[in-house]
Amino acid sequence: GLPGIAGLPGEKGESASIYRSAFSVGLTTRVPHPNVPIKFTKIFYNEQNHYDATTGKFRPTVSGVYYFAYHITVYVADVKVSLYKNDKAVVITYDQYQKNNVDQASGSVLLHMEAGDEVWLQVYGEEENNGIYADNVNDSTFMGFLLYPDLDNRH
Amino acid sequence: GLPGIAGLPGEKGESASIYRSAFSVGLTTRVPHPNVPIKFTKIFYNEQNHYDATTGKFRPTVSGVYYFAYHITVYVADVKVSLYKNDKAVVITYDQYQKNNVDQASGSVLLHMEAGDEVWLQVYGEEENNGIYADNVNDSTFMGFLLYPDLDNRH
Amino acid sequence: GLPGIAGLPGEKGESASIYRSAFSVGLTTRVPHPNVPIKFTKIFYNEQNHYDATTGKFRPTVSGVYYFAYHITVYVADVKVSLYKNDKAVVITYDQYQKNNVDQASGSVLLHMEAGDEVWLQVYGEEENNGIYADNVNDSTFMGFLLYPDLDNRH
Ligand SMILES: [Ca+2]
Ligand SMILES: [Ca+2]
Ligand SMILES: [Ca+2]
Repeated sequence: GLPGIAGLPGEKGESASIYRSAFSVGLTTRVPHPNVPIKFTKIFYNEQNHYDATTGKFRPTVSGVYYFAYHITVYVADVKVSLYKNDKAVVITYDQYQKNNVDQASGSVLLHMEAGDEVWLQVYGEEENNGIYADNVNDSTFMGFLLYPDLDNRH
Repeated sequence: GLPGIAGLPGEKGESASIYRSAFSVGLTTRVPHPNVPIKFTKIFYNEQNHYDATTGKFRPTVSGVYYFAYHITVYVADVKVSLYKNDKAVVITYDQYQKNNVDQASGSVLLHMEAGDEVWLQVYGEEENNGIYADNVNDSTFMGFLLYPDLDNRH
Repeated sequence: GLPGIAGLPGEKGESASIYRSAFSVGLTTRVPHPNVPIKFTKIFYNEQNHYDATTGKFRPTVSGVYYFAYHITVYVADVKVSLYKNDKAVVITYDQYQKNNVDQASGSVLLHMEAGDEVWLQVYGEEENNGIYADNVNDSTFMGFLLYPDLDNRH
């Protein structure tokens, strides 16, 4: 007899952008405590839940290069704040406050993260640099996103 | 008879970067009006024309997660500026001006946008917070880009 | 005969991220010289080595839209800094310093780059705007990354 009909086409290939990890959060009140991660509890975006508002830490599950940024309202006191990766202060931002002159300070950085690495913001050094402020109409924010996943994540 | 020949290979997977939407713009003069979108008319990038310089609004056609950022020169008066999404102030940045002390204020956020959603910058509240400044050698800028398109955009 | 077996799965979709170009760097000391590119020698990320710490210039090999950002600690003197693309000042950031009031200034922009284009930061204009500061606990930083490669890079 004749040969059978051709087989069905194969499955569609894998899409490129299946790796996603991003968060964008804000403070709701003035930061009370130095020497611990700052807890940003206003959530602008946290679809993958890699940011934990109960700890203030971002812990992605995909290794790769991540972008991080923060914007701080400086009020009442000077601000010295650092982005920590696994207990190491990677970037430090300092802005002095003077009476009747609220300021804004910001920082951003690209960092390679392995799955399990953690990043957070924390007041650096002494308590007098604790002027990170926020209320209903004054934001202090923190964000991050996966820019380039490591190629060996792909399979 | 013999079995049919094998089916064709599946379609190639989707590329990540077929969805693009980004703008980067600057002010050319001091902002005159509170309570309306700020019109940034210096265009650094607006390939997809999703930013409309005649209205000051960014209106993408692809749903997904977007990054937004702004950098403001604070001069002559205090600045309280907000990033609006569809008439709601999402993030508010405040920086006070003092004589002979030009300042810089900035903000950034990740937001999920549906097609048709609009984002813009606007002075928040009273007119006295209207010190957003720009001239030939002092920029105040606004930008945004599609970070992750929604997966259901794909077809 | 019987139908043939199904075809093989399709190829994986083209990844946006086979094209990668990113750097994130910081100053280690106060900027001494106006009118030349600022040399950031603390490396946070420079996997593709498109940033050259010996010249202070970023020169990617892939054409496309790039994101750039910088964050400056303003101390001792006023700061007027510009992001240059091929000898043209594209964005200019100005922040005045006053005694006992360290400030932070930042800027960001999206620019289309052809392979061979160069971007760097440089003090703009006179030497008295040279207050870009950094030490072990005060960062001034510069970064950039490929956001969308040009489609004609693909093959
Ligand atoms: Ca101020
Ligand atoms: Ca200042
Ligand atoms: Ca200050």
